[in-house]
Amino acid sequence: MPFKFDLITTDPTGARHGRVSTPHGDIETPFFMPVGTKAAVKALTPEELSTLGAQIVLSNTYHLYLRPGHGVIEELGGLHKFMNWDGPILTDSGGYQVFSLGKLRKIDEAGAHFSSHLDGTPLTLTPESAMEIQEALGADIIMALDECTPYPADYEYAKKSMERTHRWARRCKEAHNSIVNGKYQALFGIVQGSMYEDLRRASARAIVEIGFDGYAIGGLSVGEEKELLREMTSLTASVLPVESLRYLMGVGTPEDLVASVEAGVDMFDCVMPTRNARNGTLFTSRGKLGIKNALFERDSGPLDPECGCYTCVNYSRAYLRHLFIAGEMLSSRLNTIHNLHYYTGLMECMREAIKAGEFARFKAGFLAGIREGV
Amino acid sequence: MPFKFDLITTDPTGARHGRVSTPHGDIETPFFMPVGTKAAVKALTPEELSTLGAQIVLSNTYHLYLRPGHGVIEELGGLHKFMNWDGPILTDSGGYQVFSLGKLRKIDEAGAHFSSHLDGTPLTLTPESAMEIQEALGADIIMALDECTPYPADYEYAKKSMERTHRWARRCKEAHNSIVNGKYQALFGIVQGSMYEDLRRASARAIVEIGFDGYAIGGLSVGEEKELLREMTSLTASVLPVESLRYLMGVGTPEDLVASVEAGVDMFDCVMPTRNARNGTLFTSRGKLGIKNALFERDSGPLDPECGCYTCVNYSRAYLRHLFIAGEMLSSRLNTIHNLHYYTGLMECMREAIKAGEFARFKAGFLAGIREGV
Repeated sequence: MPFKFDLITTDPTGARHGRVSTPHGDIETPFFMPVGTKAAVKALTPEELSTLGAQIVLSNTYHLYLRPGHGVIEELGGLHKFMNWDGPILTDSGGYQVFSLGKLRKIDEAGAHFSSHLDGTPLTLTPESAMEIQEALGADIIMALDECTPYPADYEYAKKSMERTHRWARRCKEAHNSIVNGKYQALFGIVQGSMYEDLRRASARAIVEIGFDGYAIGGLSVGEEKELLREMTSLTASVLPVESLRYLMGVGTPEDLVASVEAGVDMFDCVMPTRNARNGTLFTSRGKLGIKNALFERDSGPLDPECGCYTCVNYSRAYLRHLFIAGEMLSSRLNTIHNLHYYTGLMECMREAIKAGEFARFKAGFLAGIREGV
Repeated sequence: MPFKFDLITTDPTGARHGRVSTPHGDIETPFFMPVGTKAAVKALTPEELSTLGAQIVLSNTYHLYLRPGHGVIEELGGLHKFMNWDGPILTDSGGYQVFSLGKLRKIDEAGAHFSSHLDGTPLTLTPESAMEIQEALGADIIMALDECTPYPADYEYAKKSMERTHRWARRCKEAHNSIVNGKYQALFGIVQGSMYEDLRRASARAIVEIGFDGYAIGGLSVGEEKELLREMTSLTASVLPVESLRYLMGVGTPEDLVASVEAGVDMFDCVMPTRNARNGTLFTSRGKLGIKNALFERDSGPLDPECGCYTCVNYSRAYLRHLFIAGEMLSSRLNTIHNLHYYTGLMECMREAIKAGEFARFKAGFLAGIREGV
């Protein structure tokens, strides 16, 4: 089965709804990808992810490359089989974690030279090895190796970094075997350009010219102001081809997702719902809630009265507070279920609003709810 | 609904099968109680416990008394509602944890004076307060406050300690309100006597004379030789009334359970399956297995080829090893599912063997499997 994106509806605001076909099933857009860093979405089973409406999972190449090693996963039949998830998977290139987690030793034309954060082993990630590793893992969508330009970056550095990202993108495309184990593996290119409008335009043009199965907007949510994030997202999305998938990497808050969908973005990933869950921060229809707040000690109500997730149907705020304070694993699990349900539910509401041509009305209601507070 | 134990079958070996009726449902004996220390069996939901064949859950009074407090749980409708488990619950008296976790300051006729291990607050647990706390929690079966005699103990100390346990047992019975929120709450007495045959006999006699809804064998699995554990279990079980439930507290390994059921014990609790799961030690039909062993790095087979649990049906040893080494919560969860399935499955096999009058044959096969090794 080939990789295909059908754009079905575009709302007056510019928000889009479509369908992606992958060898492991279809995905309705716009969608959010829960992050399963080490071949597991923390605390959850694949069945729970399905029940929660997750259509696709993201896993991190850097982590799997270091442990257990892509060779082990390949030998065991690939990442889908390894983690018992038969739906679509996207893997990143590993580049972002090399810069953020590994001890980066040098970055040159060949690639990124770094030391493992686990045991200090010196390693090199190149465009070619990023393809090789991701082919061994066997995801449905893989990402080109890029340099996520640090923020802030002066114009000269941003330009040089962007140009290297373009050369690496070309090498990725050349090295990539589109058919992996008899299945089409899509390769996405990544637009960089820091916060410079002309660089963003140039980068989008260059990456599209190389030609990929989809296009990612990289280098955002790196510490810039919200206004800048919104501006760069809109700008970049607007110059990407209408008929291709647009993926905003590593973003973000519920408000970010709504704003970005309006800007024409189709796909997202972020650790926020899962990481916040473990830290006791829950997303609700009335904004965020910190479950360890003493206010909830004897609160017999659900986290979010408007939520129908397993956690909200079965447990009180008082119990969830108790589990969190007692350090029980079930706390992470129940909170993760709630937060992912919130994120997938938000995406579903957006899809429905787009289909009805009422995204603007949806957005106004969403923002009013958040403003109300818990 | 009252509390009732019907002894249905006794195998030629002495192993017994029966049925307990409680306000929250029936329990087939012999049975094992998973430990939900802080109102949660670590990493699992109540639905998973049911699926795994857990008929009843044990929760620890000491922990709940300290946090969130029995008053909070009572106000929220009791422990069943708080933790969303509608089956039977047993709570211990809190005494054992006062001795093992709290900083014991003094033990006198009134009760145990200790400091909270959480914040050092000075507290006292008396027979009367142990009843009050457990009534507030609202379990189906509660335990009298006893002193778990340390091992080894000289004869004089063991005798004095035992006699105090008897006086406390009487005070518990006097203080206990059998009807809690319109439901019968059973109270069990605990036999002590350290490793002295005459004391064990005397203790069983004294506790039975006071009269309880069931009888526990306490003070074992405290560091003594296996031989002594077996001897004291058999001896004590043999002098307890045939028509009453016999509960061996805090025991033990699969081999311990089989030996104790043969000795006529009906019920067990132990942190072993759940704690070992989190430490990566798994029980299988061929003995124990340490999942972090490098042997399993590329092992595509299940933990236990003879096991039908969710973990064994869906995941490889290689993946479980990866999750454990990566410190993923899903590791604890999948391992706990497997180990509890092993324990509940073992109990079910024993019940079937007793019903068929073939416990001796079952035991021989069980021990042969264990001897084979993984």
